[in-house]
Amino acid sequence: MDFVLVNGKLTNSLPISDRGLNYGDGVFETIAVIKQRPQLIEEHLARLNKGCEKLSITAPAPALLVSEIKSLCKSADDQAVLKIIITRGSGGRGYRPDKDSKPARILTLHPWGEHIFHYREQGIRLSLCATRLSINPVLAGIKHLNRLEQVLASIELSNHVQEGLMRDYNDHVIEGTMSNLFIISTDNVIKTPSLKQCGIDGIMRRRLIDWLATRENKSVEETSLTLDDLHEAKHVMMTNSIIGIWPVVYFEKQHYAIPDFVTRFNRSIINKLD
Amino acid sequence: MDFVLVNGKLTNSLPISDRGLNYGDGVFETIAVIKQRPQLIEEHLARLNKGCEKLSITAPAPALLVSEIKSLCKSADDQAVLKIIITRGSGGRGYRPDKDSKPARILTLHPWGEHIFHYREQGIRLSLCATRLSINPVLAGIKHLNRLEQVLASIELSNHVQEGLMRDYNDHVIEGTMSNLFIISTDNVIKTPSLKQCGIDGIMRRRLIDWLATRENKSVEETSLTLDDLHEAKHVMMTNSIIGIWPVVYFEKQHYAIPDFVTRFNRSIINKLD
Repeated sequence: MDFVLVNGKLTNSLPISDRGLNYGDGVFETIAVIKQRPQLIEEHLARLNKGCEKLSITAPAPALLVSEIKSLCKSADDQAVLKIIITRGSGGRGYRPDKDSKPARILTLHPWGEHIFHYREQGIRLSLCATRLSINPVLAGIKHLNRLEQVLASIELSNHVQEGLMRDYNDHVIEGTMSNLFIISTDNVIKTPSLKQCGIDGIMRRRLIDWLATRENKSVEETSLTLDDLHEAKHVMMTNSIIGIWPVVYFEKQHYAIPDFVTRFNRSIINKLD
Repeated sequence: MDFVLVNGKLTNSLPISDRGLNYGDGVFETIAVIKQRPQLIEEHLARLNKGCEKLSITAPAPALLVSEIKSLCKSADDQAVLKIIITRGSGGRGYRPDKDSKPARILTLHPWGEHIFHYREQGIRLSLCATRLSINPVLAGIKHLNRLEQVLASIELSNHVQEGLMRDYNDHVIEGTMSNLFIISTDNVIKTPSLKQCGIDGIMRRRLIDWLATRENKSVEETSLTLDDLHEAKHVMMTNSIIGIWPVVYFEKQHYAIPDFVTRFNRSIINKLD
């Protein structure tokens, strides 16, 4: 993490009084940067703003944020990952924010992993996490900084799997530790879990739904899913902004084929970048 | 916040890569410091260790932490508040912790508010928060850094109330935004919500339970409570490590008397300090 901008300044540190540290009081985005260009940036900034709004944090002025993003991305490798954190800023002790707290914006560049392309082609092994997602409709959908459930779930993963599947406390399957879930049933219905109760409304999830509708004339059902639905499914896929689609080839003693549109979709992301 | 120790060094800042900021990946304690002496320190350190254990964070060596606490408390006013944060430390991007991540310890001194004594005597007004606590038995009890629910609940509070009451999604009353709840029913049973599903297992809550048993020969029932229980109660009280007991004198159009033992208990904390 060599390139960092905090409130527009080159620095690697943040005040201890920042509420992001003290309470996870903020939101973040993780964005693919290809040939120095941040991908799906409008969608990411829209979710960032929505998250700020839900938390009553004043989002940074779009022009300012975009100019800082562009400035940082100039230093990026051909493939890189940009992370943006917006916190409520510094404050005194106590949960209640000061009225005059000034939100902090933290932009960092991270390396791109070559394994990302590999698993797009080869597919991944998925395992079931014991750690559950708690139900909270107010926080559902947004990418806030309270991520202990994902941390604990990811600690469970063995080195033989690339992603872990998480359920809520009602035994609904919701998402991966870092990705959204799609399945295709034996009667060829594409389904993805509803995220009204918990989970993160992924940018790539939304993009895949749109792409399937416009390019493949296929609709996606947002619905409740259980483990049985996965066991009976023909195909299982995970998505996020960095990985695109990672098709699942193995989950709980079951093997899954890779749907033919996966390559087309993953190429469509890459093509857009040139 | 003038006095800060981060990993034993005087500094006001933390690396951006710290997982406390990125995921709320850590725990904290808030401790009363009276005449430069941290109060109930063994209980606080025990809960800190328990929290670290639940999150698989290596807790700092007790001797090291105690020596840093003592060193910082020398700079404290006659009354002050010590906050300790332990995070999993710095790490790369991704929820899964590096195996060699070194936990960070952050100690800060904060001012004591004179209103704390005032409300011990006069009682407080309590209001009901719309923001709910989500159910998560794995994280219940410990004082971790994922505190967005408390932040959102505290934003709801008007200036006319001193604390807000929070329920879980099953309509159980659990705790205040920053305090635990006790009620006394009309048939003189002292009750406090069970914290197995959510909520923070407060040090002062436990101390009050012990004090009532040993000094007043009264037992406390840990049980499920609803709003009806509060409406029908004779007395309502909130506790935390800084406030001791704040008796509630007003909640939802109802007035409550202050139980006679409140003064005795609050004095017992102060007496211990001299």
